[in-house]
Order: sequence, then C-alpha cells, then structure tokens
Amino acid sequence: MATINDIGVAAAINIVTAFAFLLAFAIFRIQPVNDRVYFPKWYLKGLRSSSIQTGGFGSKFINLDFRSYIRFLNWMPEALKMPEPELVDHAGLDSVVYLRIYLLGLKIFFPIACVAFTTMVPVNWTNKGLDRLRHSNISFSDIDKLSLSNIPNGSPRFWVHLCMAYAITFWTCFILKREYQNIALMRLQFLANDQRRPNQFTVLVRNIPADPHESICELVEHFFKVNHPDHYLTFQAVHDATKLSELVLTRKQMQNLLDYNINKHMRNLSNRPVIKMGFLGCCGEEADGIKYYTSVVEGLTREISEEKQRLRTGTKSIVPAAFVSFKSRWGAAVCAQTQQTRNPTEWLTEWAAEPRDIYYDNLALPYVDLKIRRLIVGVAYFFLTFFFMIPIAFVQSLANIEGIEKAFPFLKPLIEVKLLKSIIQGFLPGIALKIFLLFLPRILMQMSKFEGFVSTSSLERRAATRFYMFQFINVFLGSIVTGTAFQQLNSFLNQSANDIPKTIGVSIPMKATFFITYIMVDGWAGVAGEILRLKPLIIYHLKNSFLVRTEKDREEATDPGTIGFNTGEPQIQLYFLLGLVYAAVSPILLPFILVFFGLAFVVYRHQVINVYNQKYESAGKFWPDVHRRVVTALVVSQLLLMGLLSTKHASKSTPLLLVLPLLTIGFHKHCKNRYQPAFVTYPLQEAMIKDTLDRIREPNLNLKAFLRDAYAHPEFRVGEDPEPEEKLESDMSPPDLVATKRWSWRNTPLPSKDSCREIP
Amino acid sequence: MATINDIGVAAAINIVTAFAFLLAFAIFRIQPVNDRVYFPKWYLKGLRSSSIQTGGFGSKFINLDFRSYIRFLNWMPEALKMPEPELVDHAGLDSVVYLRIYLLGLKIFFPIACVAFTTMVPVNWTNKGLDRLRHSNISFSDIDKLSLSNIPNGSPRFWVHLCMAYAITFWTCFILKREYQNIALMRLQFLANDQRRPNQFTVLVRNIPADPHESICELVEHFFKVNHPDHYLTFQAVHDATKLSELVLTRKQMQNLLDYNINKHMRNLSNRPVIKMGFLGCCGEEADGIKYYTSVVEGLTREISEEKQRLRTGTKSIVPAAFVSFKSRWGAAVCAQTQQTRNPTEWLTEWAAEPRDIYYDNLALPYVDLKIRRLIVGVAYFFLTFFFMIPIAFVQSLANIEGIEKAFPFLKPLIEVKLLKSIIQGFLPGIALKIFLLFLPRILMQMSKFEGFVSTSSLERRAATRFYMFQFINVFLGSIVTGTAFQQLNSFLNQSANDIPKTIGVSIPMKATFFITYIMVDGWAGVAGEILRLKPLIIYHLKNSFLVRTEKDREEATDPGTIGFNTGEPQIQLYFLLGLVYAAVSPILLPFILVFFGLAFVVYRHQVINVYNQKYESAGKFWPDVHRRVVTALVVSQLLLMGLLSTKHASKSTPLLLVLPLLTIGFHKHCKNRYQPAFVTYPLQEAMIKDTLDRIREPNLNLKAFLRDAYAHPEFRVGEDPEPEEKLESDMSPPDLVATKRWSWRNTPLPSKDSCREIP
Repeated sequence: MATINDIGVAAAINIVTAFAFLLAFAIFRIQPVNDRVYFPKWYLKGLRSSSIQTGGFGSKFINLDFRSYIRFLNWMPEALKMPEPELVDHAGLDSVVYLRIYLLGLKIFFPIACVAFTTMVPVNWTNKGLDRLRHSNISFSDIDKLSLSNIPNGSPRFWVHLCMAYAITFWTCFILKREYQNIALMRLQFLANDQRRPNQFTVLVRNIPADPHESICELVEHFFKVNHPDHYLTFQAVHDATKLSELVLTRKQMQNLLDYNINKHMRNLSNRPVIKMGFLGCCGEEADGIKYYTSVVEGLTREISEEKQRLRTGTKSIVPAAFVSFKSRWGAAVCAQTQQTRNPTEWLTEWAAEPRDIYYDNLALPYVDLKIRRLIVGVAYFFLTFFFMIPIAFVQSLANIEGIEKAFPFLKPLIEVKLLKSIIQGFLPGIALKIFLLFLPRILMQMSKFEGFVSTSSLERRAATRFYMFQFINVFLGSIVTGTAFQQLNSFLNQSANDIPKTIGVSIPMKATFFITYIMVDGWAGVAGEILRLKPLIIYHLKNSFLVRTEKDREEATDPGTIGFNTGEPQIQLYFLLGLVYAAVSPILLPFILVFFGLAFVVYRHQVINVYNQKYESAGKFWPDVHRRVVTALVVSQLLLMGLLSTKHASKSTPLLLVLPLLTIGFHKHCKNRYQPAFVTYPLQEAMIKDTLDRIREPNLNLKAFLRDAYAHPEFRVGEDPEPEEKLESDMSPPDLVATKRWSWRNTPLPSKDSCREIP
Repeated sequence: MATINDIGVAAAINIVTAFAFLLAFAIFRIQPVNDRVYFPKWYLKGLRSSSIQTGGFGSKFINLDFRSYIRFLNWMPEALKMPEPELVDHAGLDSVVYLRIYLLGLKIFFPIACVAFTTMVPVNWTNKGLDRLRHSNISFSDIDKLSLSNIPNGSPRFWVHLCMAYAITFWTCFILKREYQNIALMRLQFLANDQRRPNQFTVLVRNIPADPHESICELVEHFFKVNHPDHYLTFQAVHDATKLSELVLTRKQMQNLLDYNINKHMRNLSNRPVIKMGFLGCCGEEADGIKYYTSVVEGLTREISEEKQRLRTGTKSIVPAAFVSFKSRWGAAVCAQTQQTRNPTEWLTEWAAEPRDIYYDNLALPYVDLKIRRLIVGVAYFFLTFFFMIPIAFVQSLANIEGIEKAFPFLKPLIEVKLLKSIIQGFLPGIALKIFLLFLPRILMQMSKFEGFVSTSSLERRAATRFYMFQFINVFLGSIVTGTAFQQLNSFLNQSANDIPKTIGVSIPMKATFFITYIMVDGWAGVAGEILRLKPLIIYHLKNSFLVRTEKDREEATDPGTIGFNTGEPQIQLYFLLGLVYAAVSPILLPFILVFFGLAFVVYRHQVINVYNQKYESAGKFWPDVHRRVVTALVVSQLLLMGLLSTKHASKSTPLLLVLPLLTIGFHKHCKNRYQPAFVTYPLQEAMIKDTLDRIREPNLNLKAFLRDAYAHPEFRVGEDPEPEEKLESDMSPPDLVATKRWSWRNTPLPSKDSCREIP
C-alpha cells in the first residue's frame, strides 16, 4: 500500500502536468494564429470573422501584447460568467445539461465531504485497529488510518458509518430528484419556446410492409390519408443513397489532393506538380498532378449527378421507411404515440429526430433484422467485455523482442542496443492494450450503428451505456478484485449471493490509494489536456499549410469537435461511483473527486462556450441515463458497504443497511414514472398550445413548403450546391476558386424536385 | 419412496372418488328440481324458463324416466359438440380462451409423452444405476427405474436427455407461439366483429388535478374541449357512492329477512312470525317480524333515495376521475394511448373497461396513494408467502388437546374418548392450514383491491399472478426442498448461484411419486368435484325453501358462478410446471397430467356451456399472463435439469443446456413484442375501419344518447328500478311482490338525469 509520501509525489507530478497544460493553453490561446482552434464556435456563429489583432508587425500570427500574458488564467472567470439561459441560446440545451452533470457531482459530494471530514475522519482516526496489525506482516499507511479499516471488528462505532450511509443515500436522492425535476422542466420549457422546426411536425415511419399492388410512396400516402384523414399533410421517402455517399466522399478526397497540388503550384508557379500513377504514388508513370486530379474530380462529379438523377427518378432505391409530416404538432404527437395496425411490427411510428440527427443508413432495417442484430451485438459485447484480454494477450505474446528479431532479422543489431531493448520491452506489451482502449469508444459506436439505431443521439447514448458497463467491470471491479473479468464472473457464479459483496467490499479500503492516483492521472491531467486541444491544433496547422486556399477552406480545416457524450459521460459516472463507494469507507478520496468535478466544470464550460459545435440537439434527452447510472452507483455502494461491514462483525448495524437498496430502487422507480415521460413523449396539451399560438401568429403559413425536403438525404442537400462545373472552369483563379454555398439546416430548406412522385 | 403398489392404491381411491362425483352429477343433473343449478346459463340467456319434464306425478322434482339414467355419461360428448365460434357467441371470448389453456396442455404434453415413452423410458429402464444401490440403505421403487435416477453417473446416455430437453423446448415454444398468434387473432377478430359498446368510445381519466377556480366537471369538459377539439363528445363524472352501496346492501339483507318471515307466515297463516330484538335475535323484547322488517326496509329505502338525491345534486361527492367519451373510436384510441400533459401523473388516460367490469371503489385513488399501496401490498405479500407458516403454527400449538381441556374443562370426559381424541389430534393441527389455504384466494383478491386496480378483470389477473407465485414457492419448491419457504430463501441466499438449481434439481426425481398423488387428489378428484357443484346445490335448495317467493327470486337464488380465473388458472399452471419439469426426468408423470388436462377440458367446457355466467368480458386479455407463466415454467425446468445433470457428472452435455434458457427468454421477448400489443392497445386502423362502417350503416346515430349513463355507478342503475314504494305497498300480495326490472348492460341504457351539471 502506498504511503502518504507516494501519494504526495504522484499528486505533485500530476499537478505539475496539469499546470503545464493550462499554462500552454493560456499562451497558445492568445496567439491570433491559433484563434480558429480555440474559438471556433464564434466563427461558426458568424460572430467573429478574423482573429483579434493587437496591431504591429507579426501580430497577425503572434500576440505581442505582453500584458495579456499576465492575465493568463482569466479565461476561468470568463467561462463562468455567461448566465445559463444565454448559454442555452449560445450552445443548445444538450451542452448546458451536460455541464450540469459536473455541477451535480459538486452538489452531491461537497456536503458529503464536509460531513465526512468532520464526523467520520475523527471516528476512524481515533482507533487502534491497525496499530494492532503493526507487528504482523500487513503493511499499511497513515492514509488507511483515515479509513474504516482502522476500526476494530465489532466496534459500536460502525453505527456512525451506518448513519453516514443513510445520510449519503438521502442527500444523493434528494439532489438527484431535484435535478431530474429541473432538467425535465428545462427540457419542456426549451421545447415550448423553440422555434418552428420540421421535426415537430414529423414522424418517422418504419417497417412499411411490402405490397404487390402499390409502390411504397403510394402505400404511405394512402395509409395516412385513410387513418389520419384530418391531420396528414405530406411525406418524404427515404432513399438508399449508400453509393452516392461513397462517391461524394471520394470526390472530397480527390478535391483535397487537387487543392494540395494547386497550392504547390501557386507557391512555385514555374514548376507544375508531377505525380506518379503507380502504387501509393511511389512508382509508375508520371503525370501532371493538377490535370490528373481535375479530370478525376470531373468524372466523379458526373457520376454523382447521374446517380442523383437515378435516385430521383427511379423508385427502386426507396426503402420501406418514410418521414410523414402532419398539419399540426398535435397530429404528429398522436401518430408518434399510437399503434397503427394490428401487427405491431409494421408501420412503426416514432418521433422523428431533427434532420441533422438522423442516421440515414439504418432507416431501412426491417424489424426481424433489428432483433437479430440486437442479439448479435449483445453476444459480441459480452465477449468484448469479458474476454477482451485474450486477443490482446495473444498480440502481446507475438510482439516481443524475439518475435521481432525472427520476423525482421536485419533489425537485430538495432534492437540489441540495451536502452532501446528495455524501452521496447516496457513499451510493446502495453501498446496493444492502449490501442484497444483508444479504439474502444469507436468499436462501441460501430456496435450501436450495427444495432440499428436511427439517430446519432441514440447511437451515442447506447455507446455511452456500453462504455460505462465496460469501465465498471474492467476498471472498477477489475482494479478491486484482481483478475480478468471472466475470472471474476466465474468466481461470482460459484459464490453465494451473500458472499459477492463481501469479496468485493473487503478489498475496497485497500484500493483507495490506487484510485486516488487514477483520479489524478485520468481526471486532473486528462481534463487539463482537453482544454489544450493538442490534436486539433496540429491538424489545423497542417491543413492550413497544405490544403487551405480560401477562408471557407480555413473554416473547414477547423474541427471544433463535440462534447463527445459517448466517452465523456461514462468517465464522469466512474467518478460518481468512486465517490459514493468511498464516501463512507475512505473519505480521503472525496477532495480529489471534488477537484476533478470543479476543474472539469470550468474547463468544459469554457469549451462549450468557445469551442464545441454540437452536431445535433436532443434537448437533454440523455438525462434519464445519467440519473439511472448515478442511482446504480448508489446501490452498488450500499451493497459493497454491507459486504464490508459484515466482514467487520458489525452484526447489529448491517441488517439495517438492507433497507437502503430497496428504498433507492423504489426512489428510482418513482423518478422514472414521474419524470422520464418528459424525455420520451410529447404531451398533447403542449402540442396544442404551440399549434394554437402558431395559428394565431401566422394564419397563412405554407407548412408544406416549410417541410419540403427537410428530411432529404444529406447528399441530396449537398447536391443542391452550385454545380461543380463552375468551379472547374475557374480552376486556376484563386482565392475564390471554391465558393460553395452550404445549406444550413436552420435556414428555410432549398426547393428541390420531389424525391418521390406525387400521387394525385 | 412409494412403491408401485402405493401409487396403485392411491390411484384406485382417487379414481373411485372421481367416478363417484361424476356418477352423482349424472344423476343429479337430470332431476328437474336441480335444473337451475346445473343449467343456469340457459335460464340467464332466456332460452329456458322452466325445467324439462318427462310427465307423470312427481316428475316436476324427480326424473322418473329410467332410460335417461343409462345414458348418464352422455353430457361428455354433448359438451364437446358445440363448435368454437358458437361457443364464443354463447359464453364470450374469455371462456373460450380459458378452455384453450387446457387444450394447450394437451397439445404440448401429448406428443412429448409419446416421444418420452418411446425413447426415454427404454433408455432409463435398461440401466442398473439403482440396482447398485440395492445393497445400500436407500430405498427405491420400480417407478424410479423409469426415471433419470436409474442412469449411472457420467453415462453417455445423458445425451438423450439433453436432446429431449431441446425437443421439449422447441415443441413447447412452437405451440406457444402458434397459440399466442391464434388468440391474438381471435381477440382482434372478436373486437372487430363486436357490436357497438360504450367502452369502445370511452376513456377512463384519472388523477384530475384539483383546481381552485373550477369544479371537476368544468375542468374535464374544458380540458378535453381544448385538447381534443374535433373528437371530444361527452363525459360522465364518478361519484363516491360508498355510503349508498352500504345502504343498498343492508336493505337487501333486511329484505331477505322480511321475505323469510313472509314465507313463514304464508305457510302457516294463523301464526304471525315473532322475532326477538336483543342480541343476535336470541333474547330481548318480542316483536312482529313482518311489521318490524317492513319498517326497517322502508326506512332504508327512504335513506337510499335521500342519499341518491344528495349525490345527484351535490358536487362534493364527485371524485377526480371521469369517463370521457369521444365521437369516434379513433378519438378514444388516440386519447387512451397518449400522454395528455407535462406532468405524467395527472390526467392519466386508459381504455375504459366495459361498464360491468369497472371496480368503482378504486377510481378515486390519487397517484401517490397508488404507489404507496403497491409498496405496502408488495411487502405484505412477501411476508404472506414466506412467513405464512408462523401464525398457523402458533394457532396449531394452541389448538391441541391440552389447550382445549384447559379452556373448556367440561369437555374433558368427551375428549378423553380414545377415538375422538385421535380424530381431534389428527384433524386440529391441519384445520388452521386448510382454512388459510381456503381463504388464500380471497386474501389475495383483497390485496389486489387494496392495490387499486380499477377493473374486476385486472383484479383477477393480479390475484392469479400472486396465487401462482405462492403455489410455486410453497407447493412446488416447498414439496421438493422440505422446510418452510423462509428457510429455503435463507439457504438460497447463502448458496452460490450455481448451487441452487443443483439443490433443487437433485431432489426432483425423488418427489415424482408425491406429485403423482397430488395430481390425482387435486386434479382428478378436484375437477370431478367441480362439476358436481355441491356448494351451489345446497345453497340453492336452502334458499329455495326459505327465501324464494317468485320466479325472479328463484333466479336470484341460483349462483351460476364464474370460471374463477384467479384460482383456476394458477392451478393449471402448476400442472404445466410439473409436466415440463418432469418430462425429461420422470416421464411417468406425463400420463397423469394428460388425464387431468383431458378431464378438465371436458368438465369446464360443459360448465362454460351450461353453468358459468361471466361477470365481464375482457376478450382474452389474460393470455399474455398465461403465456408468460408457461415460459417461466419452461425456464425453471431447464435450470433444474441443468442442476440435476451437473450432479450426475454429465459434464459434456450440461454446458449445452445453458443455451436453452437464453433461447427461451429470447423467444419470450419476441412473442411479447409481436403479440402483446394486441392485448393492450387498440390500433388506429382497426378503430378507423369500425368508425367508417358505423358511419355508413347508421349516419344519424345519436351516440350521446347511446353513451348516456353507460358508466353510471351501479347503485344509480339499481336506483332507476321502479321505486321501492310500490313494492312496500303491495307488501302482502305474493307472488308478484318484488318485480324489479333489472338493467341489463347489453340493452340500451336507461335514460336518467345527468349525474353532473352540463356546462354550456
């Protein structure tokens, strides 16, 4: 077990790292050349068009105003300044609700930490339970004297821990309930005040059954004209545009290469760039780069417009799904919440997500496929979670020094250098695991995509759930009970239900120091690294040097990124779990967690204001997941405390703990009944109020025109850009070479031909 | 363990008992005097008004046609003759679907029994596993040689049992799925062909929030006029008529006493009946019985009409619930399936059950109360199930010979008689348990009522679920693993998850003979007793002698009873469980179960045709419960077989069994998604079709008049009977003394004053 000194050293290293990151950020951010990396949000909103300059030569790239270096931490109060309602307008409700998760952590753990340090720490400290062990072989540190381990078996002092467990439960539940209530209200308010949007009137219909006599378009039109006669307005068919997407992607890559070559030529006008046509551009015939890529892009553009024409006129590519729009929000709310036909697997209706949130590739999946895919993903996830160590161990066994020497004998003298050898030996076995963990969120995202969700927000929510479970099993349980997840599963199956919490609970106090280090590395330094945005910074400057020709290109080169719910939220939840589990056992963990929550709140608030550009707005739809996971953590903490206390022979107090998980589950059920519907359905009353207001404000609104093409496939929207021919003609005339109008989803949609022949 | 001889004796006794019941029934049923007991259904349907007579003196009471005695079993083919569609018309869909549970048993177990007897019995029999034990102390019988116990540990023959388990699972699932599909179709067909009924247009709204400015009636009217403007038609307020119900009940009892006294007087006109006014009519002043009860009934009638007046004019008695009716089925379907307001605990809408199914007492319960009641009932049920033996053991310990001798010393000489003493000693300890088990369904029904369900059908379904769980834990597990349920629970908590199926599984083959006896007593003799209807027979004849004065009274004296879903279905489910558990272990049980299912099917079909009068029609809404319980039994059987095989060292085959529960649960989920909605929601397409047909057939229908008062409180309907004053005036003039018109729910409802002031 680590001593206070070890922890001190670790804390020092991590604090220094975190400070280094923060300092680097403070310097980088005030350089005008980095402005687009650290303030992309303002550019995207059109509130800033070029970086702020302080005057003087070079000030276009480097900040020469030395006074600004002194105020290097002033982004922190600035990040906290913007009031919440304004932030909702600025960044959307999703971001604001996400930030409230950090606040939730502060609200829960700050009072708990205060109480724990004033009552439990003295109770734990003034014992001699561990001193008795001083003569035995078990080593312990002063930190352990602050924990429950220091109390001798059967002591009446365990009543304090029991009371603390009750206090923690009630306080957490109280805060959780208030927060759920607030956020449900915020969501409803947000939806009520929201401007007119296509998704308010639209329902996604899936699993339209095949009919030999009618096309899908006719079928949809007839079905809704008959069954929603007073409310049905129009519909938009969904096309299978996989090929089109691929073509568009290829054209974009080729366009990049063309731009690169043109830039090269611009810098040195005498020398036209030459490329090689062979393998990877390394060998083969030579050709004029600009001409070659121009012809490729031209060909692709032709193919794209042909494919678009094919999709637009043919009906073969129409998939059995449609976006059906209604005359009123009331009509849409009714259709989304009701069963349409006898067969509950056909004509499935659900609220359409907003157009930019739709994941088009999954719309066509039939009902049976979905079930099979869910099963496959479930099994795959089980194996991923419990057996992921097997292939990694296999790769590790291959990637050792001897293996490399065998495969590449010519590297032998190099490898045999002692320093290099030790680096490889220390580095190689870990790298497979690191790569795996780096790719895990993507793997989980791919799993969700395969599973068939139809909106990006639901994909991210599902991936987050899976990531949390993975972390719970492999990070939390895996650190406490050593051994692979599968070994744990096997031993749990062979233990009695009573023994499992005991086995885990008894190891908890011993792991406190490990988790403190974990929080400092993953939490403190990680969050400080997030604000530095090293990866986007490098990519932006690379792109800026090689690809950018216009302001538009520069805009494209910045990747503002998003909050990343599928990776960020599970990480926060791990801190909730650690905090709740250790609150009654080793309260020394709590200050570290509080620092994490506080720092992360400021950092992410800054990022939300200045950087991130959310790809969709789900109006805080993820909160039920957040709530559920905190409640789960609470129940886990209660069970583990019960297990721990029962090994401490505190037989009088332990049975009283049994009530807590039951109460907590009851609390969760109550919250679910009371608040969850606000995140799932759209109440008819709300719909009616908004409809009525709309009718009064704009009695002559042409809703059909407003909705037309709102849900067209994104590639169709790109297709409405000015024809690429123009661009190719003016090939050699920068800087306005590529002046593409981009369709913004918030604007009135562009008129286009109907994607499906209208039925009279 | 019982030998074949023991079983033979038990079988003989039970077969004789069953035959005695059937013979008694065959004789009783052809006596004209019992006609109303054995064929009440025909009287109720108005197809028979007096018993069929064969002519001759006394033939009004006793059948003198001796030829009919010879054909004493001819009710059996008669019961099977009526085709299913006709039976649906005759007895409703509920009864037909209920009968199909027995058919389901036959369909599942007949092929399984055939396969088991041709393959598994030889496989089990031709072993010497048990012969080896012949020299040890463990006793076994030839019956055990037919079971899996006879196979030596680690034998490859267990592969046969594995295959059998797979075959059983697939066959059961196949039949279950087909049956679910059929019954969902039957239900939808039934609803589609059903005549116009109030419940098709009506939604029950509960938890109407209090408003200081508006009464509940105004609130309901405004809310639905605003939020369902095109579809809302009218509503009916719900009154808290508890006091009225009590008064009406008391009047009925007093009327019975009055009738008894009048009858007494009629038989002996010279002697007016005299009653005593003191305690229990045993002491106190004497009075003229007829005059006394006449005045009491008169007073109650006055009170009732005052109470009715009070309810009708005042608004204080209106509870925050209402039956809201719509202009079309579509409108009602929409309202029932959607959320109305932001707060999901207010304005809760659901399909209204048909008027005679409504349980009015629970309509007023607010949301929070419901949750608290559910919690209380859950805890109470837990204690009832796991600790019910404690009070019974306590009563048993009191009710022994010594206790009685102490309490009533004068009984001492009587009790000391040896024969009597042994009877008391054998009888008394059991009687407390028997009484408890007799009252258990009523206790469970009261629990469901307390829990707050709003329709009789849902009350019965919930009570059935609880009864099944009780039987599963206390009869099934309690018989296999001896000890009280709580002891089991405790030992299970202290065992590993792997060991529980082992502990139970290993005892299963040993208990086969016990369950065979159980099936014969509870199943064979029980079902034969059901057809005899001994209790209704006695009550009818008693009432006939003392209370009946008119044909109407005679009609009232017959209690045709109902199927009794809450007691009958859990009993059948126990046989499904036994059959599935023993199919792969001791197939000898299967013929006994088949006989039960066959006999019960014939008996209940006869009863459904001739006797039972269902109190409501839920169109087979209970089938999802039936399906779920059979699937549960299947999973339990797989787990127990797994446990049993793992103790038999069949390590190669056991892991393959792990797949079965997973597959079965997957199958259940699929069925639930695919078919359950048909039992919960009303698809909009179906509603629209029926609406359209209605509009074409009767374009000028006055729906408001049709719906008026359909959902009035039953006591209000009784109130619309001719005023009781008439009855009291004609006090002494039988036989048309009490000619009450009864409101039949199928007829057009009687017009009445509005129960709630109309709002302009």
